Amino acid sequence: MAVLMREMLGETLRELRMSSAKTLREVSGEARVSLGYLSEVERGQKEASSELLNAICGALDVPLADVLRLVSDRVEAHATVTPLPLRTPQAAA
Amino acid sequence: MAVLMREMLGETLRELRMSSAKTLREVSGEARVSLGYLSEVERGQKEASSELLNAICGALDVPLADVLRLVSDRVEAHATVTPLPLRTPQAAA
Repeated sequence: MAVLMREMLGETLRELRMSSAKTLREVSGEARVSLGYLSEVERGQKEASSELLNAICGALDVPLADVLRLVSDRVEAHATVTPLPLRTPQAAA
Repeated sequence: MAVLMREMLGETLRELRMSSAKTLREVSGEARVSLGYLSEVERGQKEASSELLNAICGALDVPLADVLRLVSDRVEAHATVTPLPLRTPQAAA
């Protein structure tokens, strides 16, 4: 499985929000983004547009360049992890 | 004007393609992306989905983490440029 930018970005944004002790509601309000959309972005389920990404960075008070550097680090860490062996549905249950 | 991720990403992808001496046609073929779409991504006019970004990185043979680091550097360089004073239409003409 390839590492997906939106998943690494979502995890990064969520961590930054947590570390600033802000709620989804606060960030969505400041960024003027719906709470549901922000939540989907954080879970890596939606691509954030560049404008939305700027708005979220603004609400988190973190420069876009810093966010992208964190995402790059996270992508690199994931990409270099040795994949676990595939589990059969039986083993996973 | 805020710096937009898609514009910095587009410039980065174009530079990487140029430095590998590949044509738009070659990269679009390898990445299985339409030439028009790739061109729009390079010009910062379209957001690249995470899957598409992976395909382009694969075609360029550059790890995603490296691309994102270059984008971060580019965002930072743009963000720290001192804006020129606004010119009036008369002065600009």
